Amino acid sequence: MTGASRGGILPLDDDDALAAAIARGVEIYDLGERLYAGMPQSSMHPKFQLTLQRRHGDLVRPDGSSGANELIVTGGHVGTHIDAFAHISFEGHLFGGIDAQAAQVGGRFKQHGAETIAPMICRGILLDIPAVLGIDRCPAAYEVTQADLQAALHLAGTRPRPGDVLLVRTGWGSLYDDASAYENPETGAPGPGLSGATWLADFQPRAVGSDTVAFERIAPIEGVPTLPVHKLMLVERGIHIIELLALEDLAAAAVRVFSFFLSPLKLVGATGSPVRPLAMRSLRTMAD
Amino acid sequence: MTGASRGGILPLDDDDALAAAIARGVEIYDLGERLYAGMPQSSMHPKFQLTLQRRHGDLVRPDGSSGANELIVTGGHVGTHIDAFAHISFEGHLFGGIDAQAAQVGGRFKQHGAETIAPMICRGILLDIPAVLGIDRCPAAYEVTQADLQAALHLAGTRPRPGDVLLVRTGWGSLYDDASAYENPETGAPGPGLSGATWLADFQPRAVGSDTVAFERIAPIEGVPTLPVHKLMLVERGIHIIELLALEDLAAAAVRVFSFFLSPLKLVGATGSPVRPLAMRSLRTMAD
Amino acid sequence: MTGASRGGILPLDDDDALAAAIARGVEIYDLGERLYAGMPQSSMHPKFQLTLQRRHGDLVRPDGSSGANELIVTGGHVGTHIDAFAHISFEGHLFGGIDAQAAQVGGRFKQHGAETIAPMICRGILLDIPAVLGIDRCPAAYEVTQADLQAALHLAGTRPRPGDVLLVRTGWGSLYDDASAYENPETGAPGPGLSGATWLADFQPRAVGSDTVAFERIAPIEGVPTLPVHKLMLVERGIHIIELLALEDLAAAAVRVFSFFLSPLKLVGATGSPVRPLAMRSLRTMAD
Amino acid sequence: MTGASRGGILPLDDDDALAAAIARGVEIYDLGERLYAGMPQSSMHPKFQLTLQRRHGDLVRPDGSSGANELIVTGGHVGTHIDAFAHISFEGHLFGGIDAQAAQVGGRFKQHGAETIAPMICRGILLDIPAVLGIDRCPAAYEVTQADLQAALHLAGTRPRPGDVLLVRTGWGSLYDDASAYENPETGAPGPGLSGATWLADFQPRAVGSDTVAFERIAPIEGVPTLPVHKLMLVERGIHIIELLALEDLAAAAVRVFSFFLSPLKLVGATGSPVRPLAMRSLRTMAD
Repeated sequence: MTGASRGGILPLDDDDALAAAIARGVEIYDLGERLYAGMPQSSMHPKFQLTLQRRHGDLVRPDGSSGANELIVTGGHVGTHIDAFAHISFEGHLFGGIDAQAAQVGGRFKQHGAETIAPMICRGILLDIPAVLGIDRCPAAYEVTQADLQAALHLAGTRPRPGDVLLVRTGWGSLYDDASAYENPETGAPGPGLSGATWLADFQPRAVGSDTVAFERIAPIEGVPTLPVHKLMLVERGIHIIELLALEDLAAAAVRVFSFFLSPLKLVGATGSPVRPLAMRSLRTMAD
Repeated sequence: MTGASRGGILPLDDDDALAAAIARGVEIYDLGERLYAGMPQSSMHPKFQLTLQRRHGDLVRPDGSSGANELIVTGGHVGTHIDAFAHISFEGHLFGGIDAQAAQVGGRFKQHGAETIAPMICRGILLDIPAVLGIDRCPAAYEVTQADLQAALHLAGTRPRPGDVLLVRTGWGSLYDDASAYENPETGAPGPGLSGATWLADFQPRAVGSDTVAFERIAPIEGVPTLPVHKLMLVERGIHIIELLALEDLAAAAVRVFSFFLSPLKLVGATGSPVRPLAMRSLRTMAD
Repeated sequence: MTGASRGGILPLDDDDALAAAIARGVEIYDLGERLYAGMPQSSMHPKFQLTLQRRHGDLVRPDGSSGANELIVTGGHVGTHIDAFAHISFEGHLFGGIDAQAAQVGGRFKQHGAETIAPMICRGILLDIPAVLGIDRCPAAYEVTQADLQAALHLAGTRPRPGDVLLVRTGWGSLYDDASAYENPETGAPGPGLSGATWLADFQPRAVGSDTVAFERIAPIEGVPTLPVHKLMLVERGIHIIELLALEDLAAAAVRVFSFFLSPLKLVGATGSPVRPLAMRSLRTMAD
Repeated sequence: MTGASRGGILPLDDDDALAAAIARGVEIYDLGERLYAGMPQSSMHPKFQLTLQRRHGDLVRPDGSSGANELIVTGGHVGTHIDAFAHISFEGHLFGGIDAQAAQVGGRFKQHGAETIAPMICRGILLDIPAVLGIDRCPAAYEVTQADLQAALHLAGTRPRPGDVLLVRTGWGSLYDDASAYENPETGAPGPGLSGATWLADFQPRAVGSDTVAFERIAPIEGVPTLPVHKLMLVERGIHIIELLALEDLAAAAVRVFSFFLSPLKLVGATGSPVRPLAMRSLRTMAD
């Protein structure tokens, strides 16, 4: 492929490896879930609401056109989302030793807000736990162990590099349209325990993620769970957490190493942001 | 760079042109503005609010950890955002002849909602109007003409292909932290008129965008303006509109052709979605 | 008591029977429940949220003072509230034959909105069903019958006049701090059936009310119940409905006839309004 | 009128002075303003939004009935409202020396929240400043002086008693449908200065109120004003403040002494509550 073959008008595609790769074609796996009232979400966060403020016909302009729009009530941890480091503190401190009380004065975080999360254009690895366990999805309250993660990484056929994004699939994405099953406060939810999470964190990923409400094994308990994996990632290691990911398509296609894209909203001083991450691969052609 | 040189563990980078391009390094231009109460926005849409629901110290867990989170009130057309085709109707119909009244029954759109907007991984072109006019930014109510757009395209040194994204810079992004100046309801705002917009639409881009509240020249008028460019793009042509883009960095670096990434939230049945688009280029190295 | 005895400065108290009655002293029974996130409410309405937007210390003024305030997300049928006639339609019409579609164009009701509900300063009667049944509270899905209502009215020792407010106690107010028990979607909730409700409506009250989510017997069903009593009251008879009332104190004191005060917020075009109604009686003194 | 003449069925009306007064008839003056998007409000508080969540026809039940409802975004100081003592602190303390930081931990006030404001059934006095000044309404930034208040009290023909409610009319209620004039941040707003307010507070009212955004003279300044009258009333004296009252009807009828009714929503831990207060007088009949 040369510039000449396209008439010389597209210098970018030739000079720029990224543009050239895109021009050749990519397949996209959508890792964001649909957002609607009644979807699975943590009861600790505002209930998602979307109402049409204006509908077509409410206000018809003189030229016969009309607009519709909506009002949205949501939160930074509602729907597929990424946690900012402002989200969790330990003994009064955020990641890097920042004083949590001082950071939050004024009603939005002066440090570690969602606007500080850099967009992610990097490598992603799917750690498909049900695939290595030979089941459809992990049982409620199942603790994803280090051995599970090792097996899933072996299945992926690669080794994490610092800055990769590591996504742990539990299979709970298949429950997404049954919010009571997905949220499952009585029976708990699957996820890594502290041991498995530490093993992941040692690879120095920029983010970890899962297809559950919390990236964390949740025991069948009442009340407010302690979240040791959140503390590890967000407070101690400076690793972002992505939750409520849609990983079923990726798993079905056995795509376990991919290019990962994520671009959080710059919600100034927020503790998280809704996102719609993407996994991508170059299209394979006959010539390949 | 060969697979062997990395020990054979990273097959993706070699097999996959996209991954290889990313591994070589990319520079990212952030096209999303910061979201905060008081930022510029259209008075036709809900006022953005972000309040901390819990702060650190409100609910300290037994292990000494504490979480903070937020409640967000916003809209699909608040902050940097993309318009879904459900947004505008003409004489009762949405793009493709869909009946607007029927589509909106139930309080969310059955067709053309924000969740139907495909992620965009494609080529983007910056049409830098102030650059061709030799000014810092377009005056209020300035109509961006076809001649302006042609000159800007010439400056970019390429020709749009179907499916590209065409971003028109007016320079108003430099006013972003002065909401009253940016919104400017008394004096209007710059943007393409119907003639210039039609010329753009004929290139069949998948989306057009601008660094203003509306992709449209807004006259200094009172009340609710007629929006012929919105009607053209969203109802007649099926071309998405991206608004409130941050284009100053791109312009300052004279980056006018780039890889464009945008991933709208899957807000089911909504008329638009907040986004944080990115422009990217492969890093140039000495070897290049 | 004469004007002279008070030095002539309080002419109102003597000339004005209402002022005189108040000056003599009244006891107040609070019929409004507390509003907080997690309180009982219908799942058909927005989830109540109250978050502090500013806290003391966020913004200290030069004089050492500081203000706190809140953002509230709620609905017209959340917490103790009154239904406007705009709330329910039958075959496309609101009370009085008003076209429901036409009334709601523009996104708020042109007729029968909450701002049209006149304040209520009138007589109220408590129909205490558990008192006549000899139980603490009605069982889930219990249908309050005409016979129950007749017995309760006999216990109250009066006869309704047109314009009175008739409050039906089921005893569910004692469950208020256990939202899952109070809401009880699986087992249903007690309330008048169509027969009992018709008997009440024939007295031509200006409003009826109850200590349940819906003034209506709710069967233990799935999905969206049909609400014949709502239709009767709001569409056919023009009688407002008050729900989620706090009636326990009134019942405990055996106060069954009282002066009733209710003042809905003038939410323009809304279908209901939160309220805090009061029941009052003149204080009895030794002289009485 | 005797009990006998009504057949002995209405014992309440005879035994109960309040009921008897109501039965004789009262005239009601509505002191609550209409609530709608675009109404006057302080820019320090959440912008009022009311959107229909469901409209008639969205979800038609099998019996042909349909319901409409709304989602409301508001605040405790939006629309006609009353301030709780939790609203203002001075040097870290609320009224009664309560520690403001400790009270607000958890995200709602443990003391002095809106749910602690007792309903008000008491005497009200209108202090009609424009009436004594011989003008339609006070100019922007006009300071209502002690002399003005004294003259207005003389016009009312009574003397405040402890526990009364004292309402200061500036005439700005006539601007209510012109939000930019009513809010008037550039030119300020009329209200009592510290001297006049202290004179009022010395009467020990349970609440004071006005027909302005703030019960306080607001100078034509930029930024966040210091509010000495708020501090006086809410922190030092324990006197509630009612704002954005509708006082035009009362003034037009020259009703200056009346029975006052106010019933705040029990918003747990909030710093204020929307209200619709009423002024009432017994109807005068020929027999009187």
